[in-house]
Amino acid sequence: MNILIVYAHPEPTSFNGAMKDLAVQTLTAQGHSVTVADLYTMGWNAVAGPSDTAVRADPDRFSLAREQTIAMESGTIAADIAAEQDRLTRADMVIFQFPVWWFGMPAILKGWVDRVFARGYAYRPGRKYDTGMFKGKLAMLATTTGTSADTYAPDGIDGDILTLLWPVHNGLLRYTGFDVLPPYVAYMPAREDEAGRALQLEGYRQRLESIETTPHLFFHSAEDYGPNERLKPGVLARSGQQRNV
Amino acid sequence: MNILIVYAHPEPTSFNGAMKDLAVQTLTAQGHSVTVADLYTMGWNAVAGPSDTAVRADPDRFSLAREQTIAMESGTIAADIAAEQDRLTRADMVIFQFPVWWFGMPAILKGWVDRVFARGYAYRPGRKYDTGMFKGKLAMLATTTGTSADTYAPDGIDGDILTLLWPVHNGLLRYTGFDVLPPYVAYMPAREDEAGRALQLEGYRQRLESIETTPHLFFHSAEDYGPNERLKPGVLARSGQQRNV
Repeated sequence: MNILIVYAHPEPTSFNGAMKDLAVQTLTAQGHSVTVADLYTMGWNAVAGPSDTAVRADPDRFSLAREQTIAMESGTIAADIAAEQDRLTRADMVIFQFPVWWFGMPAILKGWVDRVFARGYAYRPGRKYDTGMFKGKLAMLATTTGTSADTYAPDGIDGDILTLLWPVHNGLLRYTGFDVLPPYVAYMPAREDEAGRALQLEGYRQRLESIETTPHLFFHSAEDYGPNERLKPGVLARSGQQRNV
Repeated sequence: MNILIVYAHPEPTSFNGAMKDLAVQTLTAQGHSVTVADLYTMGWNAVAGPSDTAVRADPDRFSLAREQTIAMESGTIAADIAAEQDRLTRADMVIFQFPVWWFGMPAILKGWVDRVFARGYAYRPGRKYDTGMFKGKLAMLATTTGTSADTYAPDGIDGDILTLLWPVHNGLLRYTGFDVLPPYVAYMPAREDEAGRALQLEGYRQRLESIETTPHLFFHSAEDYGPNERLKPGVLARSGQQRNV
């Protein structure tokens, strides 16, 4: 497969850096072709705005969705965005490697999403979820936390890690058509000793080597939803993050 | 009250801009003192990294948490961050005004959080949730969406709006001690006509005028959690986003 790792950490010797390096080595050894988008090293511009297009469709009033749509149609999206879209288009699988900062992605990574997942490229009318633009591609989050696995249990003080990642898993990835592997989460690597960190990396290596056999996260398919995009009567919510009302 | 509105939209005539303007007018008329942090106009740097401190505590290996901690102790946090921290410190209430982009905050706002909510300022060992640094302050999210209220129902295809905002409500705001009002969400204002948008603004005006009487979101208190920071046996999960296991 062509695998794109989108990597968002400012320190190469960090645990996130080690996970990224391990993924490059492990996946390359398995015959995959791996590309890394190293956002900090690239100096990625995180802020979506008027400079994202070479020509303004409406110079008087800026709408991100409208400007993106026109720019994708006319080939005038900014060069840095076009380059990332090309990498994403070529990828069969995308891994997002990042530390959980304030219970989500670092801003530099959110800004890669805001700008690269442009309307007209990553979504358009009638193309979402089961008919998403990236149907056939696979995605996985690989991340680190600053607090324990207990705090991220369903009854933990921070809430279920899958609830915290739901906006990314369902909202970003499934929305655009990806199949999604369960996340690989290294809890509090900074509090582990060398042996503990080695174990966490070993777990990640095993995950990387079993990508093809690891069951995907469950999401309801289009047929489970009614015309109002709510679960049809009688369909039991079973994503773990949705519930019947 | 001193009220800080952190506003993240690139277009002044947007519906987000109208909500921000309405909040300034309504709250000022009620006698509050209102300040706006207009992140796009300020050209806010969204990317947390080595330039956030005037002096590097560890020049060889960058750790955001460590650098922030030392910088807060020694008064060497970057001037743009210090200025925002001063505004936040003076505020009795904070309103985050933003469009939901990819099911979360725009990167420029996430980057305001990543940099301003620094370790040593917004949190430190032993100071989180019930003992959070911003105990006594109030917060509210005011936001717009690109899809319908049905899609954000608990059984909607995008998932419960409160699940999508849980990382911000519980993870960012409650974690740092805020009491949190229910969000004011304007669903799909771009698909409404003038009358529909006027109704959405009127609903927001009513919310702004009833800040003092609107019940806060429920979060479990510290006494509900055991030493492992999971709900004690017998405590029924009732945040709506947590569940007993």
